[in-house]
Amino acid sequence: MPATEEFTGWVGLDAKSVEGNLVKTTFHPKIFSDDDIDIKISHCGMCASDLHTLRSGWGPTSYPVIVGHEIVGTVTRKGKNVTQFEIGDRVGVGAQCQSCLTCEDCIHDNEPYCTERVFTYNDTFANGDVAYGGYAQEGRYPASFAFKIPDGLPSEIAAPMMCGGITVYSPLKRNGAGPGKTVGIVGIGGLGHFGLLFAKALGSDKVYAISRSKAKEADVLAMGAEGIIATKEPGWSKTWTRKFDLIVSTANNADMPLADYLSILKPGGRFVQVGLPEEPIPQLSFGPLVMSNVSLLGSLLGSRSEIAEMLELSATTGVKSWVQTYPMEEVNKVLELMDDGKAKYRFVLSN
Amino acid sequence: MPATEEFTGWVGLDAKSVEGNLVKTTFHPKIFSDDDIDIKISHCGMCASDLHTLRSGWGPTSYPVIVGHEIVGTVTRKGKNVTQFEIGDRVGVGAQCQSCLTCEDCIHDNEPYCTERVFTYNDTFANGDVAYGGYAQEGRYPASFAFKIPDGLPSEIAAPMMCGGITVYSPLKRNGAGPGKTVGIVGIGGLGHFGLLFAKALGSDKVYAISRSKAKEADVLAMGAEGIIATKEPGWSKTWTRKFDLIVSTANNADMPLADYLSILKPGGRFVQVGLPEEPIPQLSFGPLVMSNVSLLGSLLGSRSEIAEMLELSATTGVKSWVQTYPMEEVNKVLELMDDGKAKYRFVLSN
Repeated sequence: MPATEEFTGWVGLDAKSVEGNLVKTTFHPKIFSDDDIDIKISHCGMCASDLHTLRSGWGPTSYPVIVGHEIVGTVTRKGKNVTQFEIGDRVGVGAQCQSCLTCEDCIHDNEPYCTERVFTYNDTFANGDVAYGGYAQEGRYPASFAFKIPDGLPSEIAAPMMCGGITVYSPLKRNGAGPGKTVGIVGIGGLGHFGLLFAKALGSDKVYAISRSKAKEADVLAMGAEGIIATKEPGWSKTWTRKFDLIVSTANNADMPLADYLSILKPGGRFVQVGLPEEPIPQLSFGPLVMSNVSLLGSLLGSRSEIAEMLELSATTGVKSWVQTYPMEEVNKVLELMDDGKAKYRFVLSN
Repeated sequence: MPATEEFTGWVGLDAKSVEGNLVKTTFHPKIFSDDDIDIKISHCGMCASDLHTLRSGWGPTSYPVIVGHEIVGTVTRKGKNVTQFEIGDRVGVGAQCQSCLTCEDCIHDNEPYCTERVFTYNDTFANGDVAYGGYAQEGRYPASFAFKIPDGLPSEIAAPMMCGGITVYSPLKRNGAGPGKTVGIVGIGGLGHFGLLFAKALGSDKVYAISRSKAKEADVLAMGAEGIIATKEPGWSKTWTRKFDLIVSTANNADMPLADYLSILKPGGRFVQVGLPEEPIPQLSFGPLVMSNVSLLGSLLGSRSEIAEMLELSATTGVKSWVQTYPMEEVNKVLELMDDGKAKYRFVLSN
């Protein structure tokens, strides 16, 4: 098939595109290879990364760009090397669409840290082809980073798990969330709500939301949390000193009471940052780390095996993403809703 | 026995005591309890903490103080609850001499983080008795924090392991040093030399010293390291990008190239600080943590089971501390040598 083959998507042409100025037009996907699949996209979740990228918030974006990396759809074409899918299979693609699959990191379930990693949008493949995301009617991706959606999992529930879900699932799993553990989730937005849902699904004894205020208390209780801790209340951290095994922070702002967060970890506890604030880490001394044996770490996305495991766990335990679904044709309106913080807790676009 | 019983030690009376002004005199040890042992001290290693404390470097010290927490000697008296030792047994005592033994931390091999922890000097027991260290002829300590020295391990070799050794052994062990791993040790002083020795003894594939210059190259090779990395050489970190599984930093100065250290960790790698610099951690952004899944953590001393394990490993594999031994009567002279950085790599005082 010729390289000039055309798909249709919602394209960002410049930093102002984030203000509801995406343009519906055709684009040229990557050249089809024997390892690729084409997907007829049915759903795409909307991630904060989409807005960051559209507005060049993480450095200059390479326009034109098609964002969206919480993609679900059906396989419409497959390369001759693709044996794991059949035409018509329902699959998901997340924020990473390629890695080398052979390096030490890839072999040890660390594909997100492969130096040849390709992100699903605002990135390029080795041959120079542009990687385009899921605000589109069709997509083309290496089959190695597509995942079969279990039958019991609706597409609009699965879509936002492909980035938002796995971003918190991986650090929860890797850092011991489960029976006997007390887990805190900082920031109750799209990522944070998945943090509560998955910490519970993994069997953690107690899960608490940690937020500025208690405004979302009813929601977090409905998500299964034991309660919500409001950090604007003076002296809040004293009440919780050494109570947590693990805290996953989804805060997208580094202006956080980090020393307080570390103080509520048990000795040996871990604080994992998954959001990527643009500001530096709050000033910290080695004292709290040394005197309590606590860890400060970060985590990006998750491995392929963790994505498959998360989807299976969600299907079997009935994890339900909290989503509001809109026609993709209305994406420009929804971008504005999202920028206004109206998501409860994830917007999903559907074709 | 009356509380006025007297032992003899080298006492620091004020912050100037660090300049070689310790005074040999008598002191009153803690009231003897059924859980205590008395030790005739044969050796005491000299730790940087001793100097920090004598000069009130970590905040005001409670004078008069007797420092020294790398103690080896023989049991001369034991309380009626003490079943694990006999009179005449050779034992060691480190930097911690008591914990509650019943809390979650104590039960889970985290005694150093017990909130009722008592340090071996510049601290007090629950009844108000002062804890005195090992620059002395005799010492009295709870038997629960004394450890039998294996027969094959000479006292002057064992003594500095009781603090300097365990401080690096614990984080090496807890963070996976062993077969298949590449380990870096930052700072090649008393602690750092133990880092190299124990990383090798634990079976790590490759162990490197990380220092400002290569001045100590011959020494670190003799300690078993594969080589030394000099951080004053421009671009040094590029050569070592993503090569280390674990770095244990013994630097006692926070003015370190922390971002470079994190960059030489493999994804999932860990940087553990064991020295306790008084300055804040160098400014850092979440980017390197998130994009490489690396951890920044701290560690204080080690658990009782780790101390016993370290002594046993040292006896069986022949780990030899590099020590220079002086009569304890010359402690004031040795304090000055130590403050001048003359230790290669640990001074030990002997009675």
